[in-house]
Amino acid sequence: MTFDVERIRRDFPILQQAIRGKPLVFLDSGASAQKPRAVIEAMVRCMEERYANVHRGAYFLSEAATEAYEAARGAVAGFINAADPREVIFTANSTAAINLVAHSWGRGVLRPGQAVLISEMEHHANMVPWQMLRDEGRGIELRVARVTEAGELDLDDVAARLADGKVGLVAVTHMSNVLGTVTPAERLVRMAHEAGARILFDGSQAAVHRRVDMQALGADFYVFTGHKLYGPTGIGVLWARLEHQERMPPFLGGGDMISLVTLDRVEWAPPPAKFEAGTPPIVEAVGLHAAIDYVSAIGMPAVEAHERRLVDHAMRRLSDIEGLGLLGRAQDRGGVFAFSLDNAHAHDLATLLDRAGIAVRAGRHCAEPLHARFGVESGTVRASFGLYTTEGEIDYLAEALTKAREFFA
Amino acid sequence: MTFDVERIRRDFPILQQAIRGKPLVFLDSGASAQKPRAVIEAMVRCMEERYANVHRGAYFLSEAATEAYEAARGAVAGFINAADPREVIFTANSTAAINLVAHSWGRGVLRPGQAVLISEMEHHANMVPWQMLRDEGRGIELRVARVTEAGELDLDDVAARLADGKVGLVAVTHMSNVLGTVTPAERLVRMAHEAGARILFDGSQAAVHRRVDMQALGADFYVFTGHKLYGPTGIGVLWARLEHQERMPPFLGGGDMISLVTLDRVEWAPPPAKFEAGTPPIVEAVGLHAAIDYVSAIGMPAVEAHERRLVDHAMRRLSDIEGLGLLGRAQDRGGVFAFSLDNAHAHDLATLLDRAGIAVRAGRHCAEPLHARFGVESGTVRASFGLYTTEGEIDYLAEALTKAREFFA
Repeated sequence: MTFDVERIRRDFPILQQAIRGKPLVFLDSGASAQKPRAVIEAMVRCMEERYANVHRGAYFLSEAATEAYEAARGAVAGFINAADPREVIFTANSTAAINLVAHSWGRGVLRPGQAVLISEMEHHANMVPWQMLRDEGRGIELRVARVTEAGELDLDDVAARLADGKVGLVAVTHMSNVLGTVTPAERLVRMAHEAGARILFDGSQAAVHRRVDMQALGADFYVFTGHKLYGPTGIGVLWARLEHQERMPPFLGGGDMISLVTLDRVEWAPPPAKFEAGTPPIVEAVGLHAAIDYVSAIGMPAVEAHERRLVDHAMRRLSDIEGLGLLGRAQDRGGVFAFSLDNAHAHDLATLLDRAGIAVRAGRHCAEPLHARFGVESGTVRASFGLYTTEGEIDYLAEALTKAREFFA
Repeated sequence: MTFDVERIRRDFPILQQAIRGKPLVFLDSGASAQKPRAVIEAMVRCMEERYANVHRGAYFLSEAATEAYEAARGAVAGFINAADPREVIFTANSTAAINLVAHSWGRGVLRPGQAVLISEMEHHANMVPWQMLRDEGRGIELRVARVTEAGELDLDDVAARLADGKVGLVAVTHMSNVLGTVTPAERLVRMAHEAGARILFDGSQAAVHRRVDMQALGADFYVFTGHKLYGPTGIGVLWARLEHQERMPPFLGGGDMISLVTLDRVEWAPPPAKFEAGTPPIVEAVGLHAAIDYVSAIGMPAVEAHERRLVDHAMRRLSDIEGLGLLGRAQDRGGVFAFSLDNAHAHDLATLLDRAGIAVRAGRHCAEPLHARFGVESGTVRASFGLYTTEGEIDYLAEALTKAREFFA
C-alpha cells in the first residue's frame, strides 16, 4: 500500500478548515493529535446505538457495550503485540498510568534503600510521580541519568547509576517529547534486567510513531495515551506483565475492582479489573479501538517511513535558517523539533507563527529540567508531526521562520 | 415550561431503536444514562472544528479548546451553585474523585486517631477507598452508620458515632444507588460540623435527580459523574472548598499540576490545576457542558417533579405485585428501585425481562454490605429511571414482572 498523505488528510475533518482565513498547519500533534472521521463516527455510533454501562447489566445493550469495551482491550493488545489482553489496563491518560505504577508498584513493591532511575529528558508525567515518591520519606532514592549534548541518553551514565544494583525500577521515555530522541529501548531493557531492575517506558510519543512490540521488547511496564494516537481524550493505557499486576496492591478503590466486599474486608478482582475502579472510559475505549484500526490499516511501517521523510526534510530546512538553534540532534529520532530563534522569545515566535496559521507550542513542554540542561530556561518553540503532516507544511514553517528572523532582527 | 417526556425522548437517538424487535425500555439509568443528541453533537463539533490540547499552546485552536474546557468548569460551577469555578476539579469519574479525597485529604490532612464515618448503604466507590485507608496502618478508624429497616440512614446512630469528636470526615451518599433513599444532607452537614468533622457527599445519583446547591448545602466535598448526568464517560467532578484544596497535598503528579520543576524540587500549581495532572478529558468536558445545558434548559425542578410522579407510580404498581420484595421504603426517595421476586434468582429475572426489551441490572449493584444488611446476598434486580422514563414503561415493567411471577412460580 502506498502512503498517500493527501488522501489521509481528507479523513481528518479539522484539517479541512481555515484558521483566520489561512489553511490550518497543525504542528502540535505531539501535544495531542487530531481525530480521523472513523474515530468520531465510532464514538457517535456507540452513544447512539450501543451504549450502557459495562460488566454489570444482564441485558442486550450492556452486553454489547461490554463486548465493545473488551474488544478495545484486545485491539490494544494486538497493536502492541502483548502476550495477553489482560496485560492491558485502561486508565485516564498516560499520567494516570505512570502514577498507578508509582503508587501501587512504587509504594507496594519497591523497598526502602532501592532507587528509581529516570533521565533528564523525561516529561513531568514521568518525573514528578517519582519525585513525590522520593519525597515521602520511604527511603526511596531518585537517580537521574544524563542526556548528552546531542540530546541522547548517556548510556555510560545509565550503566554507572545501575552499577550498585540498588535500582529497582528504570523509568524512561521511549521518545522524548522535546528532542524527538528515540531511546535504545531493547538495550535499556537488557541493562535494567542485568542490574536486577524492572523497566517502565513512557511511550506516549513512541507508540504513535513506531511499531512497538511488547513481546519483542521484554520490558515490564509500557505506557501510552489515546489522544496522541489519533484517538479520544480521557483514555490511556498501562501495559503491565501479569506477574507484576499480581504482586501490585490496587491503587484506586471502588466498584468493578473487587471480588468481595464486607464491612471488615475486601478481596480484589483479578487483573486487570483490580486496577480499573469505577465506570471506565467506555466510549473512549471504542474510539481508541477505531484509532488503532485506522493507523493499523495504514500500517505503522508506512507511518514510520513517512515520518522519516518528514524528519529528513525538516532537518534540511531548519538547518538552513540562520540563528535557529535546534535542541538535540540524536541519530535515532522522530518528528518532534524544539528550537529557539535568536532575539525572539518563544511565545512571541509562536504567536507570530499562529498569525500565519501555523499551530506550534511555546514553553518548556512539561520538561523543565531538560530545558535547564540545555540552558534554555525561557523555553523553546516546538513543532511536532503527525501522519497527516506534509513536506509542504514544513516548507511553509521554514519560510515563516525565515520571515520571523527578519522581523525579530 | 411544561415537561413533555415524549419530546424529550426524541432527543435521545438510542431510544428510537428496537432491541430484539421490541422497543427499548431502558431502566438502567442509575448505572449510566443515555446521551441526548446535543451532547453527542457538541463532542463531534469539538473534535471536528475546535480540538487541540489545552493550557499549553499559543495558537488559535489551543486557545479555543482551553476556553471550552474552562467554560465547562464554569458551567459545572453554575449547575451546582459553587461560589467559585476553581472549586470544581475534573476527574476521570466519581470513583477517581473520592479516591482523590481519600488519598490527598485522607492521607495528608487526617491524623492518626481520627475516624472516617460512612454508612451501610454506600456504593463501593465510597466504601473501598476508606477501607484501604483504614487497612494501611495509619491509625485511621473506619466507622459505619446503620441503615434502618425502611432503608433510611439511622441518624441516632450517626449522632452516636460522631459523639466522641474523633470523626474527621463523614463520607456518605446523597442518594442511595440501591434503595433510592435521599439522605437529609443539610442536617448531616450540621451534625458533622458540630462534631468537628468535614463532610463529603457522593452525589453520583443525587446530582442527576435533584437541584444541588453547594452554597446552600455548606458541605466540604461533593462528588458526581458525567455519564450518569446524560454526559460522556471519562469525566467526573470533585467539588472541594478552596481552603481544603490549599491544605491538600497533590495526588497525581505530572504536567499541568506544577508551577516549577527542577530535579530536586517541585512547586505545585494553584487549585484546581494542582489536582488535574496530565491531559484532561477535554472533549468529555465539552460534552458534560452540553449535558448541563440540556438538563438546565429543561430545569432541575421539572426533572425532579417528573421523577416524583414516576416514583409514586412505580410504588403503586410494584406494591401490587405479589411476591415482589422491595428493598427500602424511605420517605424521601428518588427513582431507583431494587427488588427480589419469590423463587426467582435476580439474574434469571433480569434475563427474562431483557427478552421483553427491558434493560435492568441484576446483582448487588456495587453495594454488597447493603445487600448483606437486608439479607439478600444473592442480589436484587434494580430498575432506575431517567428524565426520559415514562409511566408507560413502568406499567410495562409491572406487567412483565407479573408474568415473570407466574413463570417462576
